[in-house]
Amino acid sequence: MKAKTRPGSDSLKIPGLQIVLDPLTSLINSGLKSTYHQLEVLGTQLAATIEQITMDESQLVTLEQIKSAHNYLKTRPDMVRTPTLMHVQSLFEEHLPKDASGKGMGIDLFMKMENMQTTGSFKIRGVLNQMRKIEKRYGDKAKLVTMSAGNYGKAFAHCVGKRTTKSVCYMPLTAPKNRVTTIEGMGVEVRQVKTEELQPCVDRLVAEEGYIYCHSFDCPNLIAGNGSSAIELLEDVCDPDVVLVCCGGGGLVSGVATTLSLLGHRNCRVYAVEPEGAPSMKESFKVRQPVKLPKVSTVAGGLAPPYAGTLTYKHCHWYVEDVILVSDAEILEALKVLYNRGIRAEPSGCAAMAALFSGKVPDVEGKKVVVYVTGGNVSCAEMKKFIGEEDS
Amino acid sequence: MKAKTRPGSDSLKIPGLQIVLDPLTSLINSGLKSTYHQLEVLGTQLAATIEQITMDESQLVTLEQIKSAHNYLKTRPDMVRTPTLMHVQSLFEEHLPKDASGKGMGIDLFMKMENMQTTGSFKIRGVLNQMRKIEKRYGDKAKLVTMSAGNYGKAFAHCVGKRTTKSVCYMPLTAPKNRVTTIEGMGVEVRQVKTEELQPCVDRLVAEEGYIYCHSFDCPNLIAGNGSSAIELLEDVCDPDVVLVCCGGGGLVSGVATTLSLLGHRNCRVYAVEPEGAPSMKESFKVRQPVKLPKVSTVAGGLAPPYAGTLTYKHCHWYVEDVILVSDAEILEALKVLYNRGIRAEPSGCAAMAALFSGKVPDVEGKKVVVYVTGGNVSCAEMKKFIGEEDS
Repeated sequence: MKAKTRPGSDSLKIPGLQIVLDPLTSLINSGLKSTYHQLEVLGTQLAATIEQITMDESQLVTLEQIKSAHNYLKTRPDMVRTPTLMHVQSLFEEHLPKDASGKGMGIDLFMKMENMQTTGSFKIRGVLNQMRKIEKRYGDKAKLVTMSAGNYGKAFAHCVGKRTTKSVCYMPLTAPKNRVTTIEGMGVEVRQVKTEELQPCVDRLVAEEGYIYCHSFDCPNLIAGNGSSAIELLEDVCDPDVVLVCCGGGGLVSGVATTLSLLGHRNCRVYAVEPEGAPSMKESFKVRQPVKLPKVSTVAGGLAPPYAGTLTYKHCHWYVEDVILVSDAEILEALKVLYNRGIRAEPSGCAAMAALFSGKVPDVEGKKVVVYVTGGNVSCAEMKKFIGEEDS
Repeated sequence: MKAKTRPGSDSLKIPGLQIVLDPLTSLINSGLKSTYHQLEVLGTQLAATIEQITMDESQLVTLEQIKSAHNYLKTRPDMVRTPTLMHVQSLFEEHLPKDASGKGMGIDLFMKMENMQTTGSFKIRGVLNQMRKIEKRYGDKAKLVTMSAGNYGKAFAHCVGKRTTKSVCYMPLTAPKNRVTTIEGMGVEVRQVKTEELQPCVDRLVAEEGYIYCHSFDCPNLIAGNGSSAIELLEDVCDPDVVLVCCGGGGLVSGVATTLSLLGHRNCRVYAVEPEGAPSMKESFKVRQPVKLPKVSTVAGGLAPPYAGTLTYKHCHWYVEDVILVSDAEILEALKVLYNRGIRAEPSGCAAMAALFSGKVPDVEGKKVVVYVTGGNVSCAEMKKFIGEEDS
């Protein structure tokens, strides 16, 4: 692993704090004309903010948190232990990188099949652990809000949709109808708004109605929950050399890289793989702090949040070897190859495989390489279009 | 394994013999007014028939033939070693059979993923070995003919489509257009005829033009080649208790059951799983000889030949524990469950899983159960229909 210094100069950003301080200042200025309801909302917010500060103090998720999440998830019947495809290089021989003379590189290939996880992606690992912490703090009646156009929303709905308290998921107007109906069908209220209105709407619900905001990637409990997949991986592959993980907000790659390092696999190189059209983590690595992108555009919608998380950036900076970018064409080629081998993966779930196929991963000759297939939520109609199937 | 006596009273049926004897008799009767061409055709036929007789003499495929096929297939870059999903019972917990009190049965579940094989099904294992034998006997210029609406045809085309000698595949008029274009695109001439004309057309080409008929399931070289999958399986699961295999003509289940038994796993129960609408092997078991069905009707087209093979029946009679029937609804339910877990399998590839889910497999409590997923050749348009996906 390359030499790294822990980023001591990064200032802490606490997203919730201003939401509390501004109205508190306003209340004080207006002569404390508050209502009981307003105070209640502020109290909930203050508690959440204090928790956020406490979390940020330690900054990086600990092995204890990851093991605790793993042990909890093992008790959940809806979470499954996903299989690893072992030594499957022969399935992809013609697509694997070659050396200068055109010969194969003797890669020993493993695939961690998170597309086989409940709700069709790894997300439920983190969400179940996130909800465990929220319930512990606020009870199981807390009103929850999130925003997601995809896999987080589905995992969120799976975990909270059956509660008596209604939860809300904001989705962009552009979200496919089937995603909306899936999440609604699982018991969560969907509110569709313009993309630029998503965050303000969430903030308003938090500020005015006492909702708890469940972040879809920048949360230590998600990262710890996602780490459970790496514990499983090590049970199957005891000494991986290279691990490739698709990266959107960075919640999964943070959990995987942190877990591998803290369990002593410091020489295992973990790469985050992003689409060229949404390189938030790559850009963050360049300037050594989490950045917001002016715009994103990629076929891999699940890997396209417009900014890197503060917390996930910290974990990636510390534990991830580098960020690799892949084009939409490379992603769709990998998707097609996987589909022809009987694997249903969505574009966002194929980015890591695309990185390997493209030859962009350094030093893989003779190495044990693990590829994460992170999600399979793609409709038949979408798949038909992606693979260019003709009407029959 | 249940007690079995080797069926010594079964009379040998040699499909090729009459084709030679009839015209030979006719030639003799007509005063030997034969042409050189007719003699050439008959000579080829006679050689093939003699080979068939030699094959039938030993009746059952030997371990030596299976190991020879396995060693040959390992040298073929287009054949892959398919992975086994290990201990994946948690993925299907709600679908696995329960005991009388509604509790799980502690099944340790393994899945042999033949849908990940080249050409999307196990078929290429047998076909490559079949072609090896034909080339050894007739050289690589032999004219080949077969009939298949599905996976055999695709594997056949993969193996012979690039030859200089054109091969022919007869397909029913009802075959989906995409299957026809796939096989044509691989270099084999497709001739579409009425279903009842398939066999007569093949026979005519063999009798009149010296083609070699490549049977799609009733051939010892296919059975031996298919056995290679069981050798791989034992490398992953050293002591399976129950193995469930989808059964159409019976080529795969014959190969798997024979291999397991000859390698000493005589207590491992191998079940053939057939659709209720095409129970040719089940009916053959009842009357203790291979039967022809008056009609077949099932969503699993790949499991619907209208008769059991003479040779495959013998292998199944000897090595297969029993035949289990599943309904189309059970097959499509299994297909949907697999698809939701990221696995692309065609209806014919899901029958074995359907048998397990339906609770029809006896004595599985606490057992190591292997399910074969035998094929994944289903278009997106078909899948959309099978899983009932709405337009988005």
